[in-house]
Amino acid sequence: MSLDAYLAGERDRIDRELDRLLPAIDGPSGTVARAMRYAVLGGGKRLRSILLLASFEACGGRGEAALGPACALELIHTYSLIHDDLPMMDDDDLRRGRPTVHRAYGEAPAILTGDALLTLAFEVLGRRPAGDAAAPRRSEAVTVAAAAAGLHGMIGGQIADVEAERKQVGVEMLRWIHLHKTAALFSAGCRIGAIHAGAPDERRDALATYGRDLGLAFQITDDLLDRTASRERLGKTPGKDERCGKATYPALFGSAASRGEAERLMRGARQTLTDAGILSGSLEALAGLVLQRVH
Amino acid sequence: MSLDAYLAGERDRIDRELDRLLPAIDGPSGTVARAMRYAVLGGGKRLRSILLLASFEACGGRGEAALGPACALELIHTYSLIHDDLPMMDDDDLRRGRPTVHRAYGEAPAILTGDALLTLAFEVLGRRPAGDAAAPRRSEAVTVAAAAAGLHGMIGGQIADVEAERKQVGVEMLRWIHLHKTAALFSAGCRIGAIHAGAPDERRDALATYGRDLGLAFQITDDLLDRTASRERLGKTPGKDERCGKATYPALFGSAASRGEAERLMRGARQTLTDAGILSGSLEALAGLVLQRVH
Repeated sequence: MSLDAYLAGERDRIDRELDRLLPAIDGPSGTVARAMRYAVLGGGKRLRSILLLASFEACGGRGEAALGPACALELIHTYSLIHDDLPMMDDDDLRRGRPTVHRAYGEAPAILTGDALLTLAFEVLGRRPAGDAAAPRRSEAVTVAAAAAGLHGMIGGQIADVEAERKQVGVEMLRWIHLHKTAALFSAGCRIGAIHAGAPDERRDALATYGRDLGLAFQITDDLLDRTASRERLGKTPGKDERCGKATYPALFGSAASRGEAERLMRGARQTLTDAGILSGSLEALAGLVLQRVH
Repeated sequence: MSLDAYLAGERDRIDRELDRLLPAIDGPSGTVARAMRYAVLGGGKRLRSILLLASFEACGGRGEAALGPACALELIHTYSLIHDDLPMMDDDDLRRGRPTVHRAYGEAPAILTGDALLTLAFEVLGRRPAGDAAAPRRSEAVTVAAAAAGLHGMIGGQIADVEAERKQVGVEMLRWIHLHKTAALFSAGCRIGAIHAGAPDERRDALATYGRDLGLAFQITDDLLDRTASRERLGKTPGKDERCGKATYPALFGSAASRGEAERLMRGARQTLTDAGILSGSLEALAGLVLQRVH
């Protein structure tokens, strides 16, 4: 199977499950239900979810036990985009080629829509799935996802990022922000895949390291694309980082050195898998995919 | 032990655990850590947490297994206050006698602080506690809390409440809003207490019904206090519901009939306990406490 066919198949599987998990649009809370569907089902690469599923399978997991958790990661990612796009945060009007949620539905519904997606993610992570994963795996997955999404993960990265705008930021702080804002959730996804496959600790740790490095490389390529890609390709307003005086790898080191750093990280990620004896064509291909974005 | 001594003791126990669970104020995410502590540790009746602990004990639960979950409920409640107080939502400047989080820290940190508290709640609910509760209880508690806090619970109630302002709202819609905005989390707390005590389904359901009715009565007394109590007693700006044209029981039916409805609900709640054979001086006393607020 080609990489494109694999990705399209997984995206389709994830999108169908997301559609099933999201609430119906009716009753007095219909506005938020509609906005949840608008935000989540409006496209997206589903990279975090696919990584979770690939990690699950790389550890011998079979069946649908990881599909709900994979979707939960996408719900968490989408909630963070909605809140980050708000006027008092990054103030973005465009996301995935369409108006951001607060532009389409208003600010109060946008805040509640983000809250509802985050909450739904944990409901899905805690819920006994059709195929049934053992309960200890479910509660452990909840804790891992919450730790990655919380103050010591994504939220910590976002507040540091917001406060760093127009300040002199060095490479150490930049790496701290990327580790927390982006890499933590990638890493958690890979670890949760391994947890739901019942993998031993060393495999979980190896996959978490792989996911972290892939997340760091992904953030660098994202910042490179922000400088070079068109509005159509990005689905959001390009060049925003530079206008906001945001510290990025390209801003600090230039494009060529940033590409080099992303490549270095991906070599390391692959080596981590090899060292742990994890053979997975999908994880190999996903590592390559991140670099392809800027080549 | 007097009711006051019991409440003070439980509050103290909960406050100490909350202090332990909340993050240290350091590093690049220190602003949000500080705001989390400001919001959570700035007083509060801890009624939801005390209800969870009393339900746990009424089902024979002993030890500390329910203390973390009780604190998680308080984290969820506090996050909802922070987001609801924002300018584009209820626009409140005062909470528990002090400036609201967005007034003290700014809007972007306030949104992230709410997000971080909600996320921490699920981390705590999923985590293996010192005393250890069985994993199936933990993942079930996660799902129950998420369902009560999400679109089909608290968030649904909040969007309906926001959208109902200055509209003609009948008693059915008002009850729907109270059930979702307030009663769902009270009910979930009682159910989670029962779950962590390993209680059978009929006890869980009875406690959930008791909690729901207590939550409905609590909302009515809250709206009564908004009309009659002083700014000092409330810790927030009184008379706001009326100025916003908000539908409440007192606005629809007057104060006397509203008090009557709260009393009716509390009689029903006590009867539910009796019918299920649940004998608990604490739960009896807590039902009385809600009514005392407006007498």
